[in-house]
Amino acid sequence: MRGFRQRHALREVEALIEARIHPLSVERVPFSLALGRVLAEPVVAPRNVPPHPKSAMDGYAVRAADLPGRLEVVGEIMAKASFDRPLEKGEAVRIMTGARVPEGADTVVMVEDTVSEPPFVRIDHASVSGRHVLRTGEDLSAGAVILEAGRRLGPADLAMLVNLDALEVTVRRTPKVRLIPTGNELIPAGQAPSGNEVVESNSYMLGAMIERDGGVAVPHPIVRDDKEMLKEAIRRPGADLVVVTGGSSVGMEDFGPVVVRELGELPIHGLHMKPASPSGVGFVDGVPVLLAPGYPIAGYVAWDMIGRLIVQRQLGRTPALPYNKCRARLARTEKKAEAQVLILRVKLEAKESGLIASSIKGGAALLSTLTGADGFVIMPEGVSELEAGTEVTVYCYPS
Amino acid sequence: MRGFRQRHALREVEALIEARIHPLSVERVPFSLALGRVLAEPVVAPRNVPPHPKSAMDGYAVRAADLPGRLEVVGEIMAKASFDRPLEKGEAVRIMTGARVPEGADTVVMVEDTVSEPPFVRIDHASVSGRHVLRTGEDLSAGAVILEAGRRLGPADLAMLVNLDALEVTVRRTPKVRLIPTGNELIPAGQAPSGNEVVESNSYMLGAMIERDGGVAVPHPIVRDDKEMLKEAIRRPGADLVVVTGGSSVGMEDFGPVVVRELGELPIHGLHMKPASPSGVGFVDGVPVLLAPGYPIAGYVAWDMIGRLIVQRQLGRTPALPYNKCRARLARTEKKAEAQVLILRVKLEAKESGLIASSIKGGAALLSTLTGADGFVIMPEGVSELEAGTEVTVYCYPS
Repeated sequence: MRGFRQRHALREVEALIEARIHPLSVERVPFSLALGRVLAEPVVAPRNVPPHPKSAMDGYAVRAADLPGRLEVVGEIMAKASFDRPLEKGEAVRIMTGARVPEGADTVVMVEDTVSEPPFVRIDHASVSGRHVLRTGEDLSAGAVILEAGRRLGPADLAMLVNLDALEVTVRRTPKVRLIPTGNELIPAGQAPSGNEVVESNSYMLGAMIERDGGVAVPHPIVRDDKEMLKEAIRRPGADLVVVTGGSSVGMEDFGPVVVRELGELPIHGLHMKPASPSGVGFVDGVPVLLAPGYPIAGYVAWDMIGRLIVQRQLGRTPALPYNKCRARLARTEKKAEAQVLILRVKLEAKESGLIASSIKGGAALLSTLTGADGFVIMPEGVSELEAGTEVTVYCYPS
Repeated sequence: MRGFRQRHALREVEALIEARIHPLSVERVPFSLALGRVLAEPVVAPRNVPPHPKSAMDGYAVRAADLPGRLEVVGEIMAKASFDRPLEKGEAVRIMTGARVPEGADTVVMVEDTVSEPPFVRIDHASVSGRHVLRTGEDLSAGAVILEAGRRLGPADLAMLVNLDALEVTVRRTPKVRLIPTGNELIPAGQAPSGNEVVESNSYMLGAMIERDGGVAVPHPIVRDDKEMLKEAIRRPGADLVVVTGGSSVGMEDFGPVVVRELGELPIHGLHMKPASPSGVGFVDGVPVLLAPGYPIAGYVAWDMIGRLIVQRQLGRTPALPYNKCRARLARTEKKAEAQVLILRVKLEAKESGLIASSIKGGAALLSTLTGADGFVIMPEGVSELEAGTEVTVYCYPS
């Protein structure tokens, strides 16, 4: 046993995912449960919004041609009442924000710009036709695509769905991700570890990341280092993606790669990436399987760089790393092998000259270097050195 | 009625919130329900992690002083088994990642850097003491603060809590935000609007934003433009913050400000901000009340710039706008009143010279200008013009 004979570039993984992973089937959900779901079909405006010209201001609906001038106030339109005849030359109607602009009127003058001289109103400035008036269909034009397929629905989109009468929408089914922690050393949370025992914590971390990215985690109990038990856990039906954590490398107790090769195929094993180099991507019974290293940091990176792409592809979305970005200068010169993608955990410090990013020492075994980091820098393939002072993009962990 | 006699700067609102809003009480929750909750107390490491030196690699545990050399392999340490005597001069032990490094050994040599010659192993390079060995307490040092108070718990933090035996944590109570939509023109979602009727959609949008920021939305049915009904809705016990949408200005049907003044106080009404200028902040029975305009975009901005600060203060957190940021150049010159804070919705376009941000025309009434925007630019107080080509920070809506 000599480590990996061959390592794959991260872009090979990306190409494999693009070629072999397909969007899941669709389902209909009520808009009130659609937050965070991904549209499988565009949402089209069924009618014009507003359905008729509306006032965008509190003021007077008038004819622009009458201004400036002293106009007779012939009515008052509250939010729910309307004015039932066309406005004539020399007339004005007091109008509330959102109310229907009467026929004949083509502009609204803000109340602040008027002088009330009952039963008249004096307006000393000219206006232009259309000012402070929402045209029919100005917000939403009947038949226009308002929300595109692939969009993950956010807060304002829920309001939009209501405004479009889209009380149900067609979304992608939520990818179900089975999480299988493996290793004889693992014990469940809640037990005190003794000797070489390690409390299993990856499933909570990965479960939260899976939900962040639009999937749902289906945790599996800890599986001992036993090929048959691992086979059974992987093949159990119902998952859209299986993630095996631990035992992903080429060691004597690393059963993940062996089992996936026996049950199906493992086109990717061993990456030019750090951390998470001993990761693999395979397929069993048509279901993708991600083999992720057991160290939490490596598992975190394996999910961000690989698992996330699989789930987003299943959701019919274009992947983007879900982190705030900022620019900073490297505190130190950073080196790496040219073929490798290096994920550098960093601390940020605000100096007078701008943000400074200092890489954090310590391997993937130290969870504190992840929770203690402000974010990470990706040193891509083809780069072997970034000098101190180089400006880089930092992906920031939420705080 | 002449509009606002006086307008307040946004920083007055921020100062009021800092002076008058306090962190809520605390509660204990299990770690598995703690995702997104805010720590009210720091979490301290109860013991060293690792509790003893551990191997960070698959390889051989040896004495650095013996290298380079040909060493006798005297045992094998799997993840859960240990070696029961100190290592002697000239000896090596085959060791797995994560296993306890035996006494006497001070370095681990990766299996890739060794040649197996049973019962010996040949290592042709020197190493330094400590290489590939995790020191006792290197990840977490007993007694050290690992997660600070005020932190909103993320995926990696859940793994950290498990590793710290912190199976329960002390967090801030989740702020309960009552959402009261007001207006005679409003009808509930699911009914087709006729005439001037408008389907109520703000509560869904704001509910999602409130949860994004760590609160929980408690929706109230639509309240007609009736002072007594609005009073009852505001005073109902159980809310940490009340948000009234609609009727927040100085119009004839704007009952929000009148009612809050009658029941309590309204120190802020009318802002130098656009959109959401007709917003107010008051207190009734000690509970903060946010009066937000009824237009969805104004409501969105009122929550981001005011409501969010109140909830984050109640959670004991430092506020930061929860959006990805990027830098872009303005496509057009943008002007505004110097005293105003202007929230400019923009479309982004990638050009060869970099990102270009074009402001979107249309008032706060056009929801499509929000769902169709890529993000927004904040033109701060004290600025009256930004020339075309100026580099600005864009806060990007999630896509």
